[in-house]
Amino acid sequence: MANSTSSRSMGTVAMRWHGYRLELLDQRLLPGEEHWITSEDATGVAQCIADMVVRGAPAIGISAAYGVALAARHAGTDDWQGEVERAIDELARSRPTAVNLFWALERMGRVFGACQSLPEAAEQLAAEAVRIHEEDLAANLAMADHALEVMDIQAPMSVLTHCNTGALATGGYGTALGVIRRLHEKQLLERVYADETRPWLQGSRLTAWELTRDEIPVTLNADGAAAAILASGKVKWIVVGADRITANGDVANKIGTYNLAVLARYHSVGFMVVAPSSTVDMALASGAQIPIEEREGTEVREIRGIALAPAGVEVFNPVFDVTPASLIDAIVTEKGAVRNPDLAAMQALFA
Amino acid sequence: MANSTSSRSMGTVAMRWHGYRLELLDQRLLPGEEHWITSEDATGVAQCIADMVVRGAPAIGISAAYGVALAARHAGTDDWQGEVERAIDELARSRPTAVNLFWALERMGRVFGACQSLPEAAEQLAAEAVRIHEEDLAANLAMADHALEVMDIQAPMSVLTHCNTGALATGGYGTALGVIRRLHEKQLLERVYADETRPWLQGSRLTAWELTRDEIPVTLNADGAAAAILASGKVKWIVVGADRITANGDVANKIGTYNLAVLARYHSVGFMVVAPSSTVDMALASGAQIPIEEREGTEVREIRGIALAPAGVEVFNPVFDVTPASLIDAIVTEKGAVRNPDLAAMQALFA
Repeated sequence: MANSTSSRSMGTVAMRWHGYRLELLDQRLLPGEEHWITSEDATGVAQCIADMVVRGAPAIGISAAYGVALAARHAGTDDWQGEVERAIDELARSRPTAVNLFWALERMGRVFGACQSLPEAAEQLAAEAVRIHEEDLAANLAMADHALEVMDIQAPMSVLTHCNTGALATGGYGTALGVIRRLHEKQLLERVYADETRPWLQGSRLTAWELTRDEIPVTLNADGAAAAILASGKVKWIVVGADRITANGDVANKIGTYNLAVLARYHSVGFMVVAPSSTVDMALASGAQIPIEEREGTEVREIRGIALAPAGVEVFNPVFDVTPASLIDAIVTEKGAVRNPDLAAMQALFA
Repeated sequence: MANSTSSRSMGTVAMRWHGYRLELLDQRLLPGEEHWITSEDATGVAQCIADMVVRGAPAIGISAAYGVALAARHAGTDDWQGEVERAIDELARSRPTAVNLFWALERMGRVFGACQSLPEAAEQLAAEAVRIHEEDLAANLAMADHALEVMDIQAPMSVLTHCNTGALATGGYGTALGVIRRLHEKQLLERVYADETRPWLQGSRLTAWELTRDEIPVTLNADGAAAAILASGKVKWIVVGADRITANGDVANKIGTYNLAVLARYHSVGFMVVAPSSTVDMALASGAQIPIEEREGTEVREIRGIALAPAGVEVFNPVFDVTPASLIDAIVTEKGAVRNPDLAAMQALFA
């Protein structure tokens, strides 16, 4: 993982680490342009996170860790401790709501606190950042193992997914999209139907791009075509990610996920949620307690500055919806799978 | 209806008839620009239909009827019969699949066949076109009556709709959107949630525009937000139009309609289909026999020439889906309503 070649061999990646610089794929320009932005210091990385050059909670956390490593690598000898501390603070301000960001910075801070010299800090922080990256990738690989055990399929099938949960959103491989990769590797995948995922079009812009690039058969569809696809009988599982999972197994994820869960149940199609265990929040009793962020109406009214709707028309634009546990067949994390999730089943794995 | 003033008093209209010319609102430019295209002959009207200046099956039929009237109004005395016949042929070629177009041209042809002179033809054809327009409007008003009887509500509520079924798609008032207008007139409407309706964005471009203009409270939402809206309990009915209804009560309508029907049933929200009786095709036993048109993938991959997805990625882009009768609470036509539609209930009204 410590050089770009090994990262590339996994297929599409969101970031390339070169020891003294970090390259991030500019996801704002996809699918039109494949442009890499190079950062040699923490300020550059923080800017990339703030500007959404890189997105996806795990990918943000890993990028921030590399940002801290860069601060130590390029620090002057006079005030190296102050420089690294300021870098951590700066990175923490880049996206104030991303939980993985703080988790990664906390880990980096702990390692830094134990360092006695700048050379030691430079070496240890780079090693820790690579470890965070490798662990995320390993977690995704473990999730894919658990997911295929739950699916227990023998013949190739098609799946449907929503948003982007792939290599672009993580340290590589992906969560829900990692499961889909594993199906493809084992020749158990016929085709991925990718919801375009309005309003941000993560499905069109990122998932379709990532799967096309990695030569995994994908068909893009408008979100409204999902029921017709399920009715055709071609899809056996819907596989999605998660932003927050509560103690009873309710799942907050990208707007449109809950629609799919209802459609899956009606059509007797499996519905699986795949996310790292850090997404599970056992302190929240149910999805009703999850605050749902609403974003600007311009995301729905306009696309790249072109008006799609009357100026100023009221828009309801929630980023997430909550899928009740009762509609979920399995929640899969790197620690294992929870089938038919409820409080007891969740406590058994995450207590 | 024979002049623009009376049409305007109904609110938004797709067309204005002035006896010797027809004005059509260019729906391709909405919501950015409100531009009217004037036709003084049948060729101009046929071009407007072919180019989708006007869309919506009833609006197309009415426009074509006015096109025939214009041919007679401006015909030379030498070959007036040939001129009108060629106009009918030209209009029939403008949109080969729109059923209302042929139905309207047949009516115009019958009236023309009974005319003995050019002045008589000019007068009779204009009168018949106005009659077709007035009858369509009257049918929409009747549908609204029947629909409110089925709804039987006492207090204001919110509804959700899909695509555009309003004044822009008909001779005025609208089918499903006509029902919503009636609720608003009777102060029984809190708010309309309008699906943006990908990929063509009829909801954003046309429905949001039409309702804003007519001062009916509307909130636009991405199609994927429908389940979250229903879960909030704010919406009591989903009201949609139809493109074809089969003998057993199955309904083909804009892609995404079937999604909504499944969501409505899960959330115990009413699901109503509103369409003229000419939409009912008792010759087809069920929705499985309806051929579903698929359109170019560019509609999903691009918007106004801007790439939203990788070039050439495979797209599934059906125009319609089929909602099974079992998910429909009522089919409403100008002849009356069919509750819990099945073959027997449909035959009772449409035999």
